[in-house]
Amino acid sequence: MRIAIDAMGGDLGPRATVRGAASAALQDSRLALRLYGPRRQLEQEISCLPRRLAAAGSRLEVVDAAGIIAPGQRPSDALRHGGHSSMAAMLEAVAAGEAAAGVSAGNTGALMALGRRALGTVADIPRPAISTAIPTRDQGRCYLLDLGANVEASAERLVDFALMGELMARHVDGLAAPRVALLNVGVEGTKGTASVREADARLRALAGLDYRGYVEGDGIFSGDVDVVVCDGFVGNAVLKASEGVARMLVARVQATFEAHWSSRLVGLLARPALRRLRGELDPVRYNGASLLGLAGIVVKSHGSADAIGFHYAVQRAVQEVRHDLPRCLAAGLVPRRSAKGRSEAVERHVSDSRILAPGRPGDDDSQQEQR
Amino acid sequence: MRIAIDAMGGDLGPRATVRGAASAALQDSRLALRLYGPRRQLEQEISCLPRRLAAAGSRLEVVDAAGIIAPGQRPSDALRHGGHSSMAAMLEAVAAGEAAAGVSAGNTGALMALGRRALGTVADIPRPAISTAIPTRDQGRCYLLDLGANVEASAERLVDFALMGELMARHVDGLAAPRVALLNVGVEGTKGTASVREADARLRALAGLDYRGYVEGDGIFSGDVDVVVCDGFVGNAVLKASEGVARMLVARVQATFEAHWSSRLVGLLARPALRRLRGELDPVRYNGASLLGLAGIVVKSHGSADAIGFHYAVQRAVQEVRHDLPRCLAAGLVPRRSAKGRSEAVERHVSDSRILAPGRPGDDDSQQEQR
Repeated sequence: MRIAIDAMGGDLGPRATVRGAASAALQDSRLALRLYGPRRQLEQEISCLPRRLAAAGSRLEVVDAAGIIAPGQRPSDALRHGGHSSMAAMLEAVAAGEAAAGVSAGNTGALMALGRRALGTVADIPRPAISTAIPTRDQGRCYLLDLGANVEASAERLVDFALMGELMARHVDGLAAPRVALLNVGVEGTKGTASVREADARLRALAGLDYRGYVEGDGIFSGDVDVVVCDGFVGNAVLKASEGVARMLVARVQATFEAHWSSRLVGLLARPALRRLRGELDPVRYNGASLLGLAGIVVKSHGSADAIGFHYAVQRAVQEVRHDLPRCLAAGLVPRRSAKGRSEAVERHVSDSRILAPGRPGDDDSQQEQR
Repeated sequence: MRIAIDAMGGDLGPRATVRGAASAALQDSRLALRLYGPRRQLEQEISCLPRRLAAAGSRLEVVDAAGIIAPGQRPSDALRHGGHSSMAAMLEAVAAGEAAAGVSAGNTGALMALGRRALGTVADIPRPAISTAIPTRDQGRCYLLDLGANVEASAERLVDFALMGELMARHVDGLAAPRVALLNVGVEGTKGTASVREADARLRALAGLDYRGYVEGDGIFSGDVDVVVCDGFVGNAVLKASEGVARMLVARVQATFEAHWSSRLVGLLARPALRRLRGELDPVRYNGASLLGLAGIVVKSHGSADAIGFHYAVQRAVQEVRHDLPRCLAAGLVPRRSAKGRSEAVERHVSDSRILAPGRPGDDDSQQEQR
């Protein structure tokens, strides 16, 4: 299995991606990893891999791609000028079937826009979504989507997200009947925006879906549901706020143990337990967000992820390849989406074309940037 | 100073509110507390106060109000049929000047709707907001608003929220120049919905406001800003998700110490430190959300708050009375809002009338329930 890697994204630069890739290769000897980026820079990173990873370094193939997508670059600009970037080259390899999946820690909006152009979408999905697994109270996980690809989402799109999340939980995680919920400001039927309430009505009408109605923000972590659906503005705010709270609390746990002389000894004794805890709570544990709805597997690694985090993102991609996620999505979405009725047909986009015409959705910044 | 208390709200019923009120009265001998609810039930709760609080019980005045607003009751229904409820009676006492502020742990949507009808709004604010203080990483606090009164918010309303939050931080917390930010899905200018980007442009143009631009979800907890503004759907989801994460992590800290025999002893030794920590992280510490923009002080206690939590909510109301928050809001908002230009004038509502005509904003469920 070959995975294509955009080595040039992420806050920590190619050092983290190259080391993360080497670490993934070391763990799984059947994995072939192809790195895209400026050849000289990547070869230098490979040559200075730590000893533990050096052997795996020889299994990292480098493909030269001089261009780089900047972190703040607009998706429209990436589409116009990013054709020779490491990100675009990585995606082209996935589109051409040279790689089974692609991974990037770069600009999410650009990744989604270039990914749509290179790969198209499955089952006429007009708007892909970004999803990641969130740890839950009962040591489980819950998929949250969308995380920012669509700052607004109509009822139809929320239903698409629900179906895609359900299929991912079913096929990648092996759940027999994933429990799906809509995020709302209350659990009563009268609460929320018009699109959320309409999505609720549509989801209730769908057969074969274990739809549980509304959950509030804390329901994401309760373990009561496996998939939580919202628009990308809400999902992004919730995910980043949750990361902020987690970082704050872990820091405070440490500070509490260090605050008083009497507990400093206890803190010392507790250090192994705390280390275990930090490992458990570490957001990188579930690093790797899926660009769900593309006709190919693309995983986004968190911008701040280190080598270990990037390794997890590669593992996530491998997992999705093993379960052939795009085929599962297509097989699951086509019948359900057509069952939703004729109203859907009018707004159906010819979304599997590989090149989007100017002015079409996804060709500008609307994907990430406009309501 | 007299505070009016709707004793019938909250998940724990009147026991929590009566004990919380007694606890607040015990701490501050100048405080007069008037409780609204079914007389017999409240008198019984007062008669069985724990010994520690019994002396303060004699300072709790009971005013009979037979009706109760149900937790799931729609605001429109509360307006139509809730006139004789403990909540409406409490608000009328504030409106009549019999009490300096009101506190309720009941239905938030109903509280806002009845509060608007009883009190009107300050400075022609068409939409009040709900705000609470969130603990930050540097042991400080940050006001987040709106938390659910407006599931959608135009740019004009986001600007109002920013101004109200700033005035609260300035006058109640004594900050010389509160730092204000808009919540968004990225810090770049091109990100976000149209209303968020327009609000950003308007806030940049306002003199005398320390506006810091966009923050992402984790920015709420960073300590870098004092006020974070968003629509009520986003704020509600973020707040509840944050509570969920906090509860999950605190539970996991305990579980980690209990998981292994080796650390069980450590867990025992660490118990005092953990207790201190739990106290610090406890969301009730900052219990008490302000219904900001009403022409009177109304504080909403968290539905799940216990007696200690309710005590904090009463304290919050006292604090706002001491700083005469509505007067500060009026004095600060009128010049700034009129400086925003003529475009505002057209959509100005005669919002200080005490009774809303049918079909007017706030008279139906739009406040809490519709985009």
